[in-house]
Amino acid sequence: MTDGAAEAFVPGHVTGLFSVHRTGDAARTGSRGVGLTLTDGVTVQIEPSTDPVTTIDGASTDVESVTRVLASIGVRADVHATTELPIGAGFGVSGAMALGTAFAANAAFDCEHTENDLVRIAHVAEVESGSGLGDVVAQARGGAPIRLDPGAPPHGRLDGIPETARIEYVSFGELSTEDVISGDTETLSTAGTAGLQTVRDHPTLETFMDASRSFARDAELLTDDVATAIEDVDAEGGSASMAMLGRTVFALGTGLTDAGYDAARCRIHNAGATLR
Amino acid sequence: MTDGAAEAFVPGHVTGLFSVHRTGDAARTGSRGVGLTLTDGVTVQIEPSTDPVTTIDGASTDVESVTRVLASIGVRADVHATTELPIGAGFGVSGAMALGTAFAANAAFDCEHTENDLVRIAHVAEVESGSGLGDVVAQARGGAPIRLDPGAPPHGRLDGIPETARIEYVSFGELSTEDVISGDTETLSTAGTAGLQTVRDHPTLETFMDASRSFARDAELLTDDVATAIEDVDAEGGSASMAMLGRTVFALGTGLTDAGYDAARCRIHNAGATLR
Repeated sequence: MTDGAAEAFVPGHVTGLFSVHRTGDAARTGSRGVGLTLTDGVTVQIEPSTDPVTTIDGASTDVESVTRVLASIGVRADVHATTELPIGAGFGVSGAMALGTAFAANAAFDCEHTENDLVRIAHVAEVESGSGLGDVVAQARGGAPIRLDPGAPPHGRLDGIPETARIEYVSFGELSTEDVISGDTETLSTAGTAGLQTVRDHPTLETFMDASRSFARDAELLTDDVATAIEDVDAEGGSASMAMLGRTVFALGTGLTDAGYDAARCRIHNAGATLR
Repeated sequence: MTDGAAEAFVPGHVTGLFSVHRTGDAARTGSRGVGLTLTDGVTVQIEPSTDPVTTIDGASTDVESVTRVLASIGVRADVHATTELPIGAGFGVSGAMALGTAFAANAAFDCEHTENDLVRIAHVAEVESGSGLGDVVAQARGGAPIRLDPGAPPHGRLDGIPETARIEYVSFGELSTEDVISGDTETLSTAGTAGLQTVRDHPTLETFMDASRSFARDAELLTDDVATAIEDVDAEGGSASMAMLGRTVFALGTGLTDAGYDAARCRIHNAGATLR
């Protein structure tokens, strides 16, 4: 890296179930729910620039939450993101780019924000862009985050499922987060609230997977390809569910390969976002 | 591991500055302050047993906070801890043993506690044993934790310094945590409160090291060997301070080796306590 540059890594995040909570304040707006952070994630490099560009895997892109983070921190910089994750498929790539930009820009420009400050800046940027409600706070924590209360620090509260596991995933394509979370979310939020309580009562990965399958069905978010893959994994004795929001299936252990799918493999990530 | 056994890793933790906050409730009692979690830490193995023993690095030992954690969770188990850290020298080994026991016992006995539950159980055990006030919550978080409010979840609040670094340390021997924190802590807490505000205003590792040196001096905790080592590192342009509470010096980067000390080397740990 050149002088004044910095690099951050942010884990991917699949949400299994969630409810939507909107307020007049973006820092208090967010989702409750449960998900898994992944060792597959997004690396974000920041370099001061007078003519800023953003790229992902080398291709020029325009990510509103990244632009908002840079404006909020008050700097002009190139943002270069690389990831092995599918984009727009429910892995929290936009949240990771926003959070990675916040961490790396703070380091590159010696801005002297705390970690909570940076999480709040990235969360607000995601909410205001309409691209996410809960990924950023989960990705800042790592592990298997339970989002007890919506919003960024100091408002949101988190807990976690104390387990680790190998995770597999396969993606059939995109779903628009913005379309779903800007629409009528009452049915979805009723199902998500019930699922969260189930996981809080029995905080294990197995319960989380079961509750996530129930949520996907009750919230009427399952697509045919996703439903088939979940059934195929189930038929082999495995445990899979749908990543919110993408046409993506994730499974514990070797559930997808056991069912004959050509799945990507990673693990639950122990840590939250970090500078490299 | 045998069936029903489980293993957890907990990072070491050096506190640079702190203030003491006692209440009638152990879960709300604790310290405010700032420290670093370390990649050198404690691995804890749990195995169900009808005649429980606790060992550290193979030697039989009696750690009150570990006994309290097992009683609180309601299980009987052997606890085998291994660590490369010096014991009783300010690295949070007792907190790590308590927290590692909580995580591993929860997994071995399928107790279905959340991570916050386990942190609270271990924190309360440490406070009631008089062996620590802030290590457990820091070790559950990872990174460079800022303890904003005392106590365990849901009471305590944490933030972090968004930096990572190589860390060196050298230890000249023990100091009794119990003797210091059970005595008059007014002078110490006044200095710790001032130091915490300094780090919150400028949340960088360099500010943390400066504030820690001021704290050690103002709180009158420096021993001669520690003071000499800190001065030696300073003379070589490095940055070192004292681990609370031990006759231990830690330094950023290669500060101690540059000053001619035979120091152990590790890094700031990105993650909190995790199951293996």
